[in-house]
Amino acid sequence: MRQSVFLADTGAVSGFTVPALIMEINAQAALAKGASLTPFRYTSADPAPHEVEIEITHCGICRSDLHLIDNDWGVSKYPLVPGHEIIGHITKAGTDVSLKPGTRVGVGWQRSSCLECEECVSGRENLCIKHEATCNKHFGGFAERIVVDSRFAFPVPDALSSENAAPLLCAGVTVYTPMRHFAVKPGQRVGVIGIGGLGHLALQFARAMGCEVTAFSSSPDKEAEAKSFGAHHFVQMTKQNLRSLRRSQDFILNTAMVEMDWHAVIQTLRSDGRLCFVGVPDKPLSLPVHLILDGRRSISGSNIGGRNDMLEMLHFAALNGIKAQTEVMPLASVNEAVQKVRDNRARYRMVLAMQ
Amino acid sequence: MRQSVFLADTGAVSGFTVPALIMEINAQAALAKGASLTPFRYTSADPAPHEVEIEITHCGICRSDLHLIDNDWGVSKYPLVPGHEIIGHITKAGTDVSLKPGTRVGVGWQRSSCLECEECVSGRENLCIKHEATCNKHFGGFAERIVVDSRFAFPVPDALSSENAAPLLCAGVTVYTPMRHFAVKPGQRVGVIGIGGLGHLALQFARAMGCEVTAFSSSPDKEAEAKSFGAHHFVQMTKQNLRSLRRSQDFILNTAMVEMDWHAVIQTLRSDGRLCFVGVPDKPLSLPVHLILDGRRSISGSNIGGRNDMLEMLHFAALNGIKAQTEVMPLASVNEAVQKVRDNRARYRMVLAMQ
Repeated sequence: MRQSVFLADTGAVSGFTVPALIMEINAQAALAKGASLTPFRYTSADPAPHEVEIEITHCGICRSDLHLIDNDWGVSKYPLVPGHEIIGHITKAGTDVSLKPGTRVGVGWQRSSCLECEECVSGRENLCIKHEATCNKHFGGFAERIVVDSRFAFPVPDALSSENAAPLLCAGVTVYTPMRHFAVKPGQRVGVIGIGGLGHLALQFARAMGCEVTAFSSSPDKEAEAKSFGAHHFVQMTKQNLRSLRRSQDFILNTAMVEMDWHAVIQTLRSDGRLCFVGVPDKPLSLPVHLILDGRRSISGSNIGGRNDMLEMLHFAALNGIKAQTEVMPLASVNEAVQKVRDNRARYRMVLAMQ
Repeated sequence: MRQSVFLADTGAVSGFTVPALIMEINAQAALAKGASLTPFRYTSADPAPHEVEIEITHCGICRSDLHLIDNDWGVSKYPLVPGHEIIGHITKAGTDVSLKPGTRVGVGWQRSSCLECEECVSGRENLCIKHEATCNKHFGGFAERIVVDSRFAFPVPDALSSENAAPLLCAGVTVYTPMRHFAVKPGQRVGVIGIGGLGHLALQFARAMGCEVTAFSSSPDKEAEAKSFGAHHFVQMTKQNLRSLRRSQDFILNTAMVEMDWHAVIQTLRSDGRLCFVGVPDKPLSLPVHLILDGRRSISGSNIGGRNDMLEMLHFAALNGIKAQTEVMPLASVNEAVQKVRDNRARYRMVLAMQ
């Protein structure tokens, strides 16, 4: 893995100094845990044989970017350039790349995998234990350009606008993949918990897959929009409402990261139903085993998607007019945009425009 | 549902009296919570149109029988005639029954279902919310005879001996069904936790399905037998051993009811692996959700099997020489046999012989 060299005239942050080197890529970085983003430049070599340089036009802001900025997972490296819902055009391509310069591509959470293990050769690169994230050890998409492995850059169908497609690269594939992998079928009852960046896309995908879709939210004011995204039903998550929905759902996708009455949620599953987590609550789930023996239920997790999932998802989104509802701000306003995400004021995805 | 009329000269238990009526079926019953079994007789009408009368030759003793005797689930009705791993011959058949008198049949945990709901019409009668158990509200198989719905009496292939087949009717279908339902594939790594009445059958089924089979046990003295049942590997469940098996198993069937380090067990699952419970630990499972996001793992439950599962299982067992390892005792020695189960001294299933 090649190292990018960072540097800058970004102004020193307390306890942090960077050497002055040649600057090539303009980005926005957090220089320390929880810091506001500041202009930051780093150099990057020309694309290696499998790599492409992408001129970024749009990059979504995902909650994972905030977790990285805040070092919530204890793995953050600073300076940290967030951003992993990237859309742009190829400006340079390495010698082994089949994609042509000018091609519009998207890049998501995953930057690379070993491409050799069982998971990789079976199209499950997202499960490769050597997978690397687009932003953290590497500099991400809050930038004018990025150099990435072309095998993790995906052509974006013409029918999708860049602004509305950027969030598909992470939020979209994160909700699409478990529905496909766990074989959600047309006509089945699909519940989506949490109507935010992920959830508003999950409603659209589930509706387009021919499912009967229920939005579960703690915010009653989201009903009209949830229905506009494709929900047939809207349920405010009260104990009483959950109780009245016992044995009603085939597949529930949890996109929320908050605590709730999981026992009641599990009991809304029908026979052979599944509760799938893509949002991770802080606390361990308490799971009385009889709740899953009853009805032969399953509890699963899912994390982003593989390369084929990404291609399928983009095709399916284009075919069905699925798009993120976005609010676009210029890269220079990144801190204002990040704050809207922190405050849960994004409706439903903040996207940075680079030009 | 027709009521059987019970009665007896069984001797009164404190606080319990039974009217003296005509006696027809000799059985062994617990007259109160946790009581020893005592001779007990009850009358039963002739088979209704869909019913058969079975002269029982063998009945296995399942741990669930003990739970019922002890009222561990708070649902027991006394007098309680346990027994739901029944083999016998049809002696009388109702007018709508296609099975002929003389046919050898087996009866398992489930006595009936509605046969009309979505679960029933899709071959998942075990998930019918109106299902009824063979023994509890009805008198079970620790008896000379029983009258049951013919649609839950399954012809036993000639290749299976009654003694060795009786435990298949509950223990067998309980371990076979999740492997089939969750699509365990030849060549996959299947782990079985708990090498007892269920586990020793699970090892045989998994081996016959072409899997690489690992027996997980807390008892190192079971290694040789576990391997004789088909395990390729035997693992004593220590922290260190589990750690060394991280990401090694595609499917783990838990047949044990004791607490263990479930986090370590989950971490032995490979990508897309599944931990399936058929044994229910007393305490809720603590499930850190990141453990199932990692590797897209699933935690599932499964409870007995449907009618088609039962037929498939019996065919598969006959085809592959799968049989319970049993110790047979006469019905009159039922208390001694039950005590061996209580003491975990059954190797691996106690079976009562009626004649």
